[in-house]
Amino acid sequence: MKNNKLVIVGTMAFDEIITPTAESGKILGGAATYIGLAAAFADADIAAVSVVGEDFLQEHLNLLTDRGIDISGVEQVSGGKSFYWKGKYHDNMNKRDTLDTQLNVLADFNPIVPEKYRDASIVMLGNLDPNVQQKVLDQLAPNPNRTVLLDTMNFWMDLQLNTLLNVIKQVDIITINDEEALQLSGEANLVLAAKAIHKMGPAYVIIKKGEHGALLFYKDQPFFAPALPLEKVVDPTGAGDSFAGGLSGYLAAQQTTNATTIKAGILQGTAAASLCVGTMGTSGLVQSSKEDFFAQLQKLERLRTITL
Amino acid sequence: MKNNKLVIVGTMAFDEIITPTAESGKILGGAATYIGLAAAFADADIAAVSVVGEDFLQEHLNLLTDRGIDISGVEQVSGGKSFYWKGKYHDNMNKRDTLDTQLNVLADFNPIVPEKYRDASIVMLGNLDPNVQQKVLDQLAPNPNRTVLLDTMNFWMDLQLNTLLNVIKQVDIITINDEEALQLSGEANLVLAAKAIHKMGPAYVIIKKGEHGALLFYKDQPFFAPALPLEKVVDPTGAGDSFAGGLSGYLAAQQTTNATTIKAGILQGTAAASLCVGTMGTSGLVQSSKEDFFAQLQKLERLRTITL
Repeated sequence: MKNNKLVIVGTMAFDEIITPTAESGKILGGAATYIGLAAAFADADIAAVSVVGEDFLQEHLNLLTDRGIDISGVEQVSGGKSFYWKGKYHDNMNKRDTLDTQLNVLADFNPIVPEKYRDASIVMLGNLDPNVQQKVLDQLAPNPNRTVLLDTMNFWMDLQLNTLLNVIKQVDIITINDEEALQLSGEANLVLAAKAIHKMGPAYVIIKKGEHGALLFYKDQPFFAPALPLEKVVDPTGAGDSFAGGLSGYLAAQQTTNATTIKAGILQGTAAASLCVGTMGTSGLVQSSKEDFFAQLQKLERLRTITL
Repeated sequence: MKNNKLVIVGTMAFDEIITPTAESGKILGGAATYIGLAAAFADADIAAVSVVGEDFLQEHLNLLTDRGIDISGVEQVSGGKSFYWKGKYHDNMNKRDTLDTQLNVLADFNPIVPEKYRDASIVMLGNLDPNVQQKVLDQLAPNPNRTVLLDTMNFWMDLQLNTLLNVIKQVDIITINDEEALQLSGEANLVLAAKAIHKMGPAYVIIKKGEHGALLFYKDQPFFAPALPLEKVVDPTGAGDSFAGGLSGYLAAQQTTNATTIKAGILQGTAAASLCVGTMGTSGLVQSSKEDFFAQLQKLERLRTITL
């Protein structure tokens, strides 16, 4: 029976982004937004679970519904304001400072997975309070072929480590950046960090290294996917979410999770991230067609191939 | 007619290396040493061109001759002292400070390429004063199928930029690390840096990123080779030289230089570098058999392969 359902939980938000060369003003952002837009390049049946305020416009929701994403699990709170984040990137674009965070409606977010999607094969827990991630897991109907992916960041390690570790136990695939992998594991080396994180639960540990690509560790066998070399990075915001979206969308479409589909999925995630970072905010993903996406995938294959 | 001759010019030296966990004492080092030992994994006819002092022991020279490397171009200066370098690595092993440099016999080095090797197909100009690199080029006999490789570093950009640029003009392949590629080109982005360096002469620009692998740029088409993820890096000294050695040895053995052999050669260089950094100084290369080398190559293939 076909089950290409993908449930995504994450923020839908407004961002204000300052880079060395530009200021975005208040624009659409949020993990679920990037993940959803990136996942929609694949032939998956996608539902977003999130919360927004009254300030979230129909045109923003349309960006998701236009891509066939089910938003019946996106709660809109009357009189509420959407989650807001303001950040500034350093000169090399590899580091950023958070200038402002306003949780707003996110503070009381009680996620509801739509009935139709409770048996989803793929569940993508976007970077979010691990208590919310757990509530999503608690609502799922049994599915022996389910794959659960989790993305997280240092913020939750600092504030909610025990809850986070409990969620990580239930997860098949974790995506985490290199510095955060070291922090979570307490190791100073990525290979040792991956081994330690395996022991926390996930069979597949994916370490994101930004412009330096991504490493998958599975049964101590590493796989590496390079990032596409780009002449210009406009805004790295959402690159990790786009990566998770490309990967989880592909796994849902394949209806099979194993080392081979995950590796191929990492390349899909890499392609999505490359479309994301070339423009400000979500516009790179929004403006890209499936053809644009496949063109990035082809560039990635050439980047990896010895004999042309 | 078979011509698998490889001429290497570079230092042969004594190093003293301090890492966060170890001190080497005075040990064998030098670019030509690392390059020669790494190149010798391939079926190439290798000659080293260098200069050493009276303090250079027969046992050190034997390490090269035992691998079949011709050292008739290695001048030993009676009463002279060998080049000496002392350096200390930072905690993350990615940066190092030079604590002491004594040029000694290197100050008056006048390289002589042995007659038999003047028609070599592959010439590897190791990191060295570009005036010496030029003198080697000046002694070569014509060979329309020759490939010249050059490795260099920021020191020569600071001190001998014009001479270096003149050598770079005559070179087919340049290997250079990421920071130095930015410095040489004046760009802030590696893709743009590679384009600028292409214009200086080399058709093939290889940017070394250490633990993050290596990027080849050829006709604006990039190729990426990942580094092997390692649990322990003992001493990064000579990794770049080992990379250049693995690459140049392979090209000499193949007797064909094109985008495909260069890409494959980059993997050979990566495998050699992975053997180098796991131990202090040259001992990793010295203790490794061809079987050890091929085992690293196989690990690299698994690291790059989706379907196992």
